[in-house]
Amino acid sequence: MNEAYIIGAGQSPFGSYPDETYLSLFETAFDSALESAPAAFSPDAIDEAYLGTLGVGGRQIGLSAPAVTEHVGLHGIPTTRVENACAASGFALRQAVTAVRSGMVDIALAGGYEVMTDTSSDHTRWWLGVSGETEWERMSGTTFAGVYAQMASAHIGAYDTTIEDLSRVAVKNHANGAKNPKAHLGFECTLEDAMNAPSVADPLNLYHCCPTTDGASAVLVASEDAARELGETSMRVAGAGASSGRVGLFQRETLTGIPASIRAGEAAYEEAGIGPEEIDLAEVHDCFAIAELLAYEDLGFCERGEAATLLREGVTDPDGDLPTNTSGGLKSKGHPIGATGTGQVVELFEQFHGTASVQIDDLQYALAHNVGGSGGGTTVHIFEREEVSA
Amino acid sequence: MNEAYIIGAGQSPFGSYPDETYLSLFETAFDSALESAPAAFSPDAIDEAYLGTLGVGGRQIGLSAPAVTEHVGLHGIPTTRVENACAASGFALRQAVTAVRSGMVDIALAGGYEVMTDTSSDHTRWWLGVSGETEWERMSGTTFAGVYAQMASAHIGAYDTTIEDLSRVAVKNHANGAKNPKAHLGFECTLEDAMNAPSVADPLNLYHCCPTTDGASAVLVASEDAARELGETSMRVAGAGASSGRVGLFQRETLTGIPASIRAGEAAYEEAGIGPEEIDLAEVHDCFAIAELLAYEDLGFCERGEAATLLREGVTDPDGDLPTNTSGGLKSKGHPIGATGTGQVVELFEQFHGTASVQIDDLQYALAHNVGGSGGGTTVHIFEREEVSA
Repeated sequence: MNEAYIIGAGQSPFGSYPDETYLSLFETAFDSALESAPAAFSPDAIDEAYLGTLGVGGRQIGLSAPAVTEHVGLHGIPTTRVENACAASGFALRQAVTAVRSGMVDIALAGGYEVMTDTSSDHTRWWLGVSGETEWERMSGTTFAGVYAQMASAHIGAYDTTIEDLSRVAVKNHANGAKNPKAHLGFECTLEDAMNAPSVADPLNLYHCCPTTDGASAVLVASEDAARELGETSMRVAGAGASSGRVGLFQRETLTGIPASIRAGEAAYEEAGIGPEEIDLAEVHDCFAIAELLAYEDLGFCERGEAATLLREGVTDPDGDLPTNTSGGLKSKGHPIGATGTGQVVELFEQFHGTASVQIDDLQYALAHNVGGSGGGTTVHIFEREEVSA
Repeated sequence: MNEAYIIGAGQSPFGSYPDETYLSLFETAFDSALESAPAAFSPDAIDEAYLGTLGVGGRQIGLSAPAVTEHVGLHGIPTTRVENACAASGFALRQAVTAVRSGMVDIALAGGYEVMTDTSSDHTRWWLGVSGETEWERMSGTTFAGVYAQMASAHIGAYDTTIEDLSRVAVKNHANGAKNPKAHLGFECTLEDAMNAPSVADPLNLYHCCPTTDGASAVLVASEDAARELGETSMRVAGAGASSGRVGLFQRETLTGIPASIRAGEAAYEEAGIGPEEIDLAEVHDCFAIAELLAYEDLGFCERGEAATLLREGVTDPDGDLPTNTSGGLKSKGHPIGATGTGQVVELFEQFHGTASVQIDDLQYALAHNVGGSGGGTTVHIFEREEVSA
């Protein structure tokens, strides 16, 4: 099996951009990825593309991915749209890695895009609802925040987790995002702010929920030969794990963890030949504050029920042992559904290259964790630092 | 690069099934694929799934693919939804082949599903419109049939192609589909019927358009080692070509051919190491009658402008040199969008195993051609017969 390397990664600013389209946002992300790639790299070398989007917002619905690659000048390359709700581009990245590993292509483009703010708020709520199970969740009136609220309630009931802990996730991620010039909600918040926000779906309040965001991201995946030729082998894909799970929360055996995340993490660790204790930095899927806490446990960063302790002790702060969501996470950086998975990789690429807004030193292994819906599908990618060869 | 083999393929009946869901239809297809596989094969061996659907019909919109695999008992395997409009499962198959070739998996499931008849006819028309370009085609009122009608007009204007030739496509494909017990419109039609049907989008009439169909299909792709162990190496994936193109017809350099199909065919032939003259049997994407004629030319079965001659001379009849759409094609077998690409492979698998409803003998190479929209993306797969090893 061929090795795969990340040789470039970029994103558009995340935010509310009523004057932009999915095409213009992706073009910005793609240009940013090209700028980050070695000078000798030419987009003509891109053999294939995998792009993620939930994409039911009323613009191009069918075939939007080929429309995107044609728009940025990648004429005629095979382009596939991947949709696994909020994990669309995590799965797109996995396909790009698979294509490179197969030897069928030397360079694959993975990315994602979403325009969420051009629809009425009613429509956006409906739209987000489609990431949940339709028949027994959405049609019976459960909002998507309501699904995660049930998980929060269950975790608070089962363990020593409090609403203050949910708010601490917001405080940490906003502190990081305030330094990220491409973040949607790039401002700090205090614990008091985060405790006193209006309720969205009890026990989740406004500061426990990510925003509705427009944006795009793009990642260039290269074979080992191509990466070596370009002298860019600093970020190897050490593990690409994925799993699916029951789409409906009511269909699962537990509410206090996401089985698909557990399995995806195990697969990624096994492929990378390491355990969670070797991860130096993580971007995890904090669509709601409780999701970050579940991620700590599902990915083995701590024992079940211990996530709040990890957070309270500052382990996942930038100066802790396992900085998490240094980009600001979905909470502060924003969550343009299809762009989130590869957007996480943009942060890790910048970290490996020393250009992150909240820079972490001495990285060996970094992890990206992208969840579709409330856990219908998860990808976990582990990246390992190698030395630049040229 | 590892070789990939098709070791099983099955489909639900194609038709109008108001009492079925995307889950129940896929379950039928999956069971049918398992029945066609070697007796020693267990579904527990399936490592990963790629499923295609356009899927904006109002049922499960986000994450429908994991819902499907969980429903059929494939708990926790990575499952990715692919959407490239009408080529969704052609691209899903290509991903499954890529995954097997990468060595990451031994057995991958490819398939597709679509429920089209549970929406109002207005909604279905809108829905099909999403396979075209949104801003300048759909929003300006061009129907999807209208897009192909422009291609038909252009071909009739440029070459010796007539409305009678469009009708001959219907007569041939209905004659084949009448023998296929799983066809949606499983009846014969005469040239007179096909010439005198009501107009849909001039020059296309009702018999020049495929029906609106519910259905599902499933294909099992195995690595060479897995295939040999199961004693099922009769159908090797010799070539997996794909390309994208401008989604809007008005953006293309020609109306009398589909550039993405030309490129996808060239890629598949190159990988297979053969030319079009070696193809013994083809399933081509005849969503509208003109599309079958374009396919003959785009895939190199004849020179540009000569498709009607091929048809008139009976070359693509079952007793001709290059039988095409022996299943009945999209026209008679039906076109459940996401299920069509892998549905074509079901026909070819049956042909390789001597169980097709219109059986063709002495097959060495067979081709499947699946077009997304009016040519925003195309896949071409070429399969080669090998002897069964056990």
